[in-house]
Amino acid sequence: MARKYVSMRNLRFLLHEMFKVAELGKSPYFARHNLTTYKLVLDEALKLGDKLLHPIFEEMDRKPPELVNGEVVVHPLTRKILSEFGKSGWISASFSEEHGGEQLPFTVAAACNFIFAAANYSGSVYMGLSAGAVHLIQNFGSDDLKKTYVDKMIQGEWQGTMALTEPQAGSSLSDITTCARPDGKGGYTLTGQKVFISAGDHNGADNVVHLVLARIDGAPAGVKGISLFVVPKKRVEGNGDLVFNDVTVTQVFHKMGYRGAPITELSFGEKGDCRAYLVGEANRGLVYMFQMMNEARLGVGLGATAIASAAYYSALDYTRNRLQGRRLLSKDPLSAQIPIIEHADVKRMLLFQRAVVEGSLALILQCSFYEDMQHVAEGDDKERFHLLLDLLTPVAKSYPAEMGILSTSQSIQCFGGYGYCEDFPVEQHFRDMRIHTIHEGTTGIQGMDLLGRKLVMNNGKAFFLFLAEVRKTVNEAKSVSGLERQSAALEDALKTLEQVSGHLIALAQTQGPETMLADAVLYLELFGTVTMAWQWLTQALTASAALVKDPSKSDQAFYQGKLYTCRYFFAYELPKIKGLAQRLTDEDPLTLSMPSECFGD
Amino acid sequence: MARKYVSMRNLRFLLHEMFKVAELGKSPYFARHNLTTYKLVLDEALKLGDKLLHPIFEEMDRKPPELVNGEVVVHPLTRKILSEFGKSGWISASFSEEHGGEQLPFTVAAACNFIFAAANYSGSVYMGLSAGAVHLIQNFGSDDLKKTYVDKMIQGEWQGTMALTEPQAGSSLSDITTCARPDGKGGYTLTGQKVFISAGDHNGADNVVHLVLARIDGAPAGVKGISLFVVPKKRVEGNGDLVFNDVTVTQVFHKMGYRGAPITELSFGEKGDCRAYLVGEANRGLVYMFQMMNEARLGVGLGATAIASAAYYSALDYTRNRLQGRRLLSKDPLSAQIPIIEHADVKRMLLFQRAVVEGSLALILQCSFYEDMQHVAEGDDKERFHLLLDLLTPVAKSYPAEMGILSTSQSIQCFGGYGYCEDFPVEQHFRDMRIHTIHEGTTGIQGMDLLGRKLVMNNGKAFFLFLAEVRKTVNEAKSVSGLERQSAALEDALKTLEQVSGHLIALAQTQGPETMLADAVLYLELFGTVTMAWQWLTQALTASAALVKDPSKSDQAFYQGKLYTCRYFFAYELPKIKGLAQRLTDEDPLTLSMPSECFGD
Repeated sequence: MARKYVSMRNLRFLLHEMFKVAELGKSPYFARHNLTTYKLVLDEALKLGDKLLHPIFEEMDRKPPELVNGEVVVHPLTRKILSEFGKSGWISASFSEEHGGEQLPFTVAAACNFIFAAANYSGSVYMGLSAGAVHLIQNFGSDDLKKTYVDKMIQGEWQGTMALTEPQAGSSLSDITTCARPDGKGGYTLTGQKVFISAGDHNGADNVVHLVLARIDGAPAGVKGISLFVVPKKRVEGNGDLVFNDVTVTQVFHKMGYRGAPITELSFGEKGDCRAYLVGEANRGLVYMFQMMNEARLGVGLGATAIASAAYYSALDYTRNRLQGRRLLSKDPLSAQIPIIEHADVKRMLLFQRAVVEGSLALILQCSFYEDMQHVAEGDDKERFHLLLDLLTPVAKSYPAEMGILSTSQSIQCFGGYGYCEDFPVEQHFRDMRIHTIHEGTTGIQGMDLLGRKLVMNNGKAFFLFLAEVRKTVNEAKSVSGLERQSAALEDALKTLEQVSGHLIALAQTQGPETMLADAVLYLELFGTVTMAWQWLTQALTASAALVKDPSKSDQAFYQGKLYTCRYFFAYELPKIKGLAQRLTDEDPLTLSMPSECFGD
Repeated sequence: MARKYVSMRNLRFLLHEMFKVAELGKSPYFARHNLTTYKLVLDEALKLGDKLLHPIFEEMDRKPPELVNGEVVVHPLTRKILSEFGKSGWISASFSEEHGGEQLPFTVAAACNFIFAAANYSGSVYMGLSAGAVHLIQNFGSDDLKKTYVDKMIQGEWQGTMALTEPQAGSSLSDITTCARPDGKGGYTLTGQKVFISAGDHNGADNVVHLVLARIDGAPAGVKGISLFVVPKKRVEGNGDLVFNDVTVTQVFHKMGYRGAPITELSFGEKGDCRAYLVGEANRGLVYMFQMMNEARLGVGLGATAIASAAYYSALDYTRNRLQGRRLLSKDPLSAQIPIIEHADVKRMLLFQRAVVEGSLALILQCSFYEDMQHVAEGDDKERFHLLLDLLTPVAKSYPAEMGILSTSQSIQCFGGYGYCEDFPVEQHFRDMRIHTIHEGTTGIQGMDLLGRKLVMNNGKAFFLFLAEVRKTVNEAKSVSGLERQSAALEDALKTLEQVSGHLIALAQTQGPETMLADAVLYLELFGTVTMAWQWLTQALTASAALVKDPSKSDQAFYQGKLYTCRYFFAYELPKIKGLAQRLTDEDPLTLSMPSECFGD
């Protein structure tokens, strides 16, 4: 039997009881789906997780990809994973029918991706990357590009990638120098180097299709001169033959974790024979890419949450079975030892993990739900869902990534010394987790995005919509027995968030954006904590309503557990915003005024 | 040139300017040492770190110990490390002359150990373990034991270990079952199993001498029936021959980090031929061991701080040289990129690391200084220093261990994606760090020790002495220009600490110890944060005094850096106690009342 890595009960709770995804079926776009198909889809996802991904969770880590004779050799089952996910329609599940998909709501697709990532994070990223790349081609590419690439990628025969980063251009994308020169025949010849390209090459696919950001020779400097290209590892000649396209793997990185997926350094056009195919219009590349980037960022939050989930269930299982110590009041050294889950401090550690895992998952699904609603809504509503999604994306990326480090760390702590050893999976979860505050935009970048762009866009419209959403929950919860205290606390927290936000916006006007943004990461943490409190109060509301209906004994325990975890969040986590708010309003421009020489000896 | 892993300037600052260790020379016990010998000793330590330990920092990690034909094979230079540290007197440096040592103050010895651990944590633990074991034999063993074992261990020919943990007895030491049966000839025969024994066997030493906790057949249950034994891997026969003593290595653990040191599982007496030699009196084993345990716990705090130091200096170096991005107000995409240390958020991350590293080191040296003062003081003063050391030991163990995880994590973050790769050392530092909240007593155990024992011992005497020490610093700092705000904040923080402590003590009386201790870890965090603020204010006081004396330009930058980091700590870290205090006084006995079934599906 596979180790438990997700709670299907919790997924059902979130999808059906809290977000009521079945109601999406009222819209024509999602009409083909209903509770029965969702159940089938989720069961199938768990089966794939159990049978295909989870059994090689450790193996993919222990035998990481290696560069052999110019090709990256990955775990032998990678090919099977990619093709199985392709053939069964997983890569394109949430695509529109017109794009070869099933029009599965993002919310349900996200739940499935959560299962895959929890089963084996490294193993799950291959298809996600392909889906993102296909999406770009479908949305912005020519018919010719679509005809040549989409089907092979959707079928899991070819791998898709997104190639943005260069050695001198990581967080600062405006500095990319990869260059596309018109070849005089309507195409382009590419030269340049990309680093940290996930699944940038491997022997589990027959071809690799890179979606590459590059600068057309003579394009404007900065972000306004960046274009998007399709650059295959092997290009398709007129006769249908695949011919090497002068894309060379120069390195596969050896990483602390996330070792099952090859992260590569690529060189384009070393021999002057790398053809690149423009996607959409010239110089619009970053705009196109950022439409995918938001999905990718949600995906990072989802991956982090999934890893934390797997670690949490390992810790939960261990603490239930590991006997150690006695109740404090027990004086008899010969009495039996108790399971460590019975110690208050262990329960606290488990509650922390559960709060992070289930709270983050709720937020990810909330964002996916906004995505779905944006798809089917019209007019003002459409804009409302779009703005909410836009505002919350940096939060849904960063909170799970940052807190996931702490959560998997607590999973290790629950195991004591055993947690530090390879005999148990949690040390790998801790290592796999650490990339998530970095890839697809560091926490620093997310903080600037939230405070510098999202908070103030459309004169703060998104922020006001968010406040209204949270207030709606507060007002509902106020009158629910047992949630009075939490409702009041969230109302206070909202006031704190408003005050801090107002203070920082005023600061921008008086002292400029650098001062406003210096502690953007702390603002992001404060915002994330309040957002999480909202998600926990919503879960508690849902659980309270369910408890009234006299559920089964195991459901009672589940719902009570939700109420306890909500209480935990409000008692232990939400109070952290006090210290953050104090710092964010104390106006000591320390990090701006300190000369860097003062770090010297 | 070796990478920088410690700041010698900072060590001089702490030892000479802040703690004024030279003044210890006024006491006859330390009279042989002076500033010159301390300088020589520190320089020699750095040389050993640079030449012997640091060059194999990565190698020891990449080729971890393996069990081969019943013996643990370690890095080939381990033998050289152990003998070099032995022959040059490092293992016994702080021992009394009577015990073959140099009577080096603990404060200076700690500074040297800090250098060694920062150079290569795994490589540095071998001699520390030997020193601890020797210390036990010297303090409590018979002359015969001393004659047989001490010299070889001090010389680095034989390895010493401390063998406490058993599979069923980790945090709950009272449950150990390893059994010593009188052999009828005045000795004992041992049977049992120990796990997680550091340096429990390796081919870098000619013999391994285990200091083993075991139960003499028929001894009382619980901690009152535990005795301490010397159990060598090879025993010395009458003719001086070394004969296998039936100690078998059954496993060497494969760990996430700290991989250069072999952590082993041992089986004693599988063939019924394992002789054990009683140390001191029967049934007093845990008392003896705990005298070493306190040193070992300080050692863990020191090790964690040292790892964080090495990671910090790597990050500092990288951020000074990595060019990425521009000032926010710079609109020209063709202008040169700036070193990332110039970004406010990067500076914040560096200040966090520096605050943790230099604050923790100050606290470790503070504790070592109390140890030295306890040694040379008399009467009330002796007790005062002893109580302060006792109170602060769990704090000095846990704060660096817990915050070290976050600090090394921020070191990785400073590198972006590169920090996640083996090409840079910070990913190893992050892995090496993670053991420290576990070994020598988990953070949970330290929290119970602080709140359940240390706070209330002698009617709170240690706590009151601590408050007085901190108040002394506050009163000094109050009148120093530039430190007014921090003095006031620390005064407030002390009040918070007193209020919370009083509240918890009252809670014990009304609701019992389980309620009082449920959040002991949060209390430990609050206590640690206030303690750190005290250490930072003390450093700022020292730096302020030095700045008045018109120091050199580089010294000015150094002292200014201290003032900035103190400001950082008070602005960003100290405010965290607000949320902790709120939780510790809100009286929702959540983790005690929640049935563990509620974690169920």
